[in-house]
Amino acid sequence: MQAQDLILVSVDDHLVEPPDVFDHHLPARYRDRAPRVQRRPDGSDVWVFDGTVIPNVGLNAVAGRPREEYGVEPTAFDEMRPGCYDVHERIKDMDAGGVLGSMCFPSFPGFSARLFAASEDKDLALAVIRAYNDWHVDEWCGAYPGRFIPMALPILWDPELCASEVRRLAAKGVHSLTFTENPAALGYPSFHEEHWDPLWRALTEEGVVLSIHLGSSGQLSVTAPNAPVDVMITLQPMNICQAAADLVWSRVIKRFPGIRIALSEGGTGWIPYFLDRLDRTYEMHHLWTGQDFGGRLPSEVFREHFLTCFIADPVGIALRHAIGLDNIAWECDYPHSDSSWPRSAEELSAVAADVPDAELAKITYENACRWYSFDPFAHRAKESSTVGALRAEAAGHSVEVRSFDKGRFVRSGQGIDLGEMAERATA
Amino acid sequence: MQAQDLILVSVDDHLVEPPDVFDHHLPARYRDRAPRVQRRPDGSDVWVFDGTVIPNVGLNAVAGRPREEYGVEPTAFDEMRPGCYDVHERIKDMDAGGVLGSMCFPSFPGFSARLFAASEDKDLALAVIRAYNDWHVDEWCGAYPGRFIPMALPILWDPELCASEVRRLAAKGVHSLTFTENPAALGYPSFHEEHWDPLWRALTEEGVVLSIHLGSSGQLSVTAPNAPVDVMITLQPMNICQAAADLVWSRVIKRFPGIRIALSEGGTGWIPYFLDRLDRTYEMHHLWTGQDFGGRLPSEVFREHFLTCFIADPVGIALRHAIGLDNIAWECDYPHSDSSWPRSAEELSAVAADVPDAELAKITYENACRWYSFDPFAHRAKESSTVGALRAEAAGHSVEVRSFDKGRFVRSGQGIDLGEMAERATA
Repeated sequence: MQAQDLILVSVDDHLVEPPDVFDHHLPARYRDRAPRVQRRPDGSDVWVFDGTVIPNVGLNAVAGRPREEYGVEPTAFDEMRPGCYDVHERIKDMDAGGVLGSMCFPSFPGFSARLFAASEDKDLALAVIRAYNDWHVDEWCGAYPGRFIPMALPILWDPELCASEVRRLAAKGVHSLTFTENPAALGYPSFHEEHWDPLWRALTEEGVVLSIHLGSSGQLSVTAPNAPVDVMITLQPMNICQAAADLVWSRVIKRFPGIRIALSEGGTGWIPYFLDRLDRTYEMHHLWTGQDFGGRLPSEVFREHFLTCFIADPVGIALRHAIGLDNIAWECDYPHSDSSWPRSAEELSAVAADVPDAELAKITYENACRWYSFDPFAHRAKESSTVGALRAEAAGHSVEVRSFDKGRFVRSGQGIDLGEMAERATA
Repeated sequence: MQAQDLILVSVDDHLVEPPDVFDHHLPARYRDRAPRVQRRPDGSDVWVFDGTVIPNVGLNAVAGRPREEYGVEPTAFDEMRPGCYDVHERIKDMDAGGVLGSMCFPSFPGFSARLFAASEDKDLALAVIRAYNDWHVDEWCGAYPGRFIPMALPILWDPELCASEVRRLAAKGVHSLTFTENPAALGYPSFHEEHWDPLWRALTEEGVVLSIHLGSSGQLSVTAPNAPVDVMITLQPMNICQAAADLVWSRVIKRFPGIRIALSEGGTGWIPYFLDRLDRTYEMHHLWTGQDFGGRLPSEVFREHFLTCFIADPVGIALRHAIGLDNIAWECDYPHSDSSWPRSAEELSAVAADVPDAELAKITYENACRWYSFDPFAHRAKESSTVGALRAEAAGHSVEVRSFDKGRFVRSGQGIDLGEMAERATA
């Protein structure tokens, strides 16, 4: 299919929170303790919450920069494309890229809102998370109906509260919860304990997908402190296989047959091998480990529960039937450095040149819409939703590559505190 | 190709050290401090060295057992098939399985002889490692010329000493050094430091392959203490991608263009995705990370330096051209639980039914022979080396499945001290 004729819904993008996130949704009594943006004397912007300072407001938000500068982390809003944090500019960038729909993961709070969960004042943390979620749903997504798949931040420290938040937001049309790859790695009970059951129950009853982004365990694939940063960038997507294995063999899948999980930014080319490995492990070992999926193989179980995604993965495309045509979605990863925005459609079209149109439609938007109960065509006719149609609307919007001179140059991991920014330093 | 017509050289098997390893090769002054086997009052056998007790002499040595008992770790020699530790019985088992050649990794010392390296008396440790190597080459491999690819234990604490040992053994025909996936994880300098250069130089000058077995970093893929053991078993092979990425982007490859590395027991189906990921990482990031392979792509560099292997990997077979026909070898994994011995030939033949004979020959023995400078046909005619010919010689040797009643039953990780047996608990 020609790039111009694709319909693209991305299940993995990122937003950089603008300074006004908490202006309109936090109860008045918490106003003066809200997370806030501060400009520092050196010209950088930081988020400050509950005594914690989060630098690099736009970590890896490099869309529209020359590749030579990908290591230069934006340290201030004026070093980023406005599309990173301004929803009106984001829509223009989506149009320019031909992207109809987008699900945006959080930035400064961490993929599972660890920053807020770390607060000792749990009432404050709860209020802040609810305010963020309301901002995300009402302001960010609400500004352009049918263009964003809304996503909720979780309440990590209390599964009952988290379940309530899932139900509250489901009533507002939210069918995605961003969550950690591995709660045990963050100091919470693992996927193998009953602790989380109230949350799994809410997700299945409300039809909400558990969206697990790579890096959300807080554990980067760092082989050695002095390893080149290329090592970590290479390994990040496949590393999510740990979460996939953890969940496939867990009680979660067995007790909550309706649960659905997305492996966000995890790529797909490794999945067929992984499925074979699951089945071989089952065949060789289940007689002594006691694993029982009611006569099914774990690869079948995987396909019932997991959504995978890619930016443009030639191996995943070639092996799409071994993965499952209903289990693959597309992602743009705007504004991170793995993204090929604004040429993502062309990249995908080239990689998928041999894929029949009906199969490609599943991958580029149908699976995303079904998994996330997202119906963009209630707001816009399908024939106006193609890459070509959207780009026509963006006529005149500049996508030129811009350089910034204020940024620090970061090379081979030098200058990056890998531990500190653990879960947020995505490839 | 029919199973009976295959020629099989396995690049990954395991031996359980018999009690007499150190009887004939340790200088007299160390005799009373040699590692030794002790029988305990409960009937179990343990190795004892320098104050450390290593239980489970035959960890995962389950060949010939019913699968229901795979979790029952053999705790005494009489709970194992003699082929695990007796070279004459091993040869009979190899014949019965139709396996012409075999490279045997160590068991109780750990894949990189960490047990010996941990001794504070480095003179003793050095003597013990040299004695082990001499036993391995002269007695285990020497008993049946042309049937074993000899392999050396490394001297982890001193690259110069290790280089000398590599050269000493190369003169005896040894072209494989077992080594750790990640020295940094064991507390030694990482692959990114000049520290190891004397070793890399010796390996390249002597034509010795660095054989890196999964699990040899001492870090298991354990997601949570209460995760089912199936999670770890599933993840072990792919986890070696960390070592592959670490080495591809390292200075080792760039400074020592002759170095060759084997990813032992790592499987192959994930490799094509990994190679794409390497190349995408290069394309998107090398302008700021500074990676430079003289104009080549990292996937090309990988194929120059890395040997992969599988037991029977349908995805790897299907994608063999994307991996590299010269970069895939076969392994049996006797006597571990991933092995399908004595039916390995049938399993492979079924999985590779569509592979042309010439391609399959590269995978089943030609690549192994070339990489490890191994020439079994100097000792035995090729027509007598097939699965069928070897099995004819094994006529009458029993391969019946036997049960043991002394063993503990181990289920879902209960009873296994995962931390303690870290690098030795292979799938």
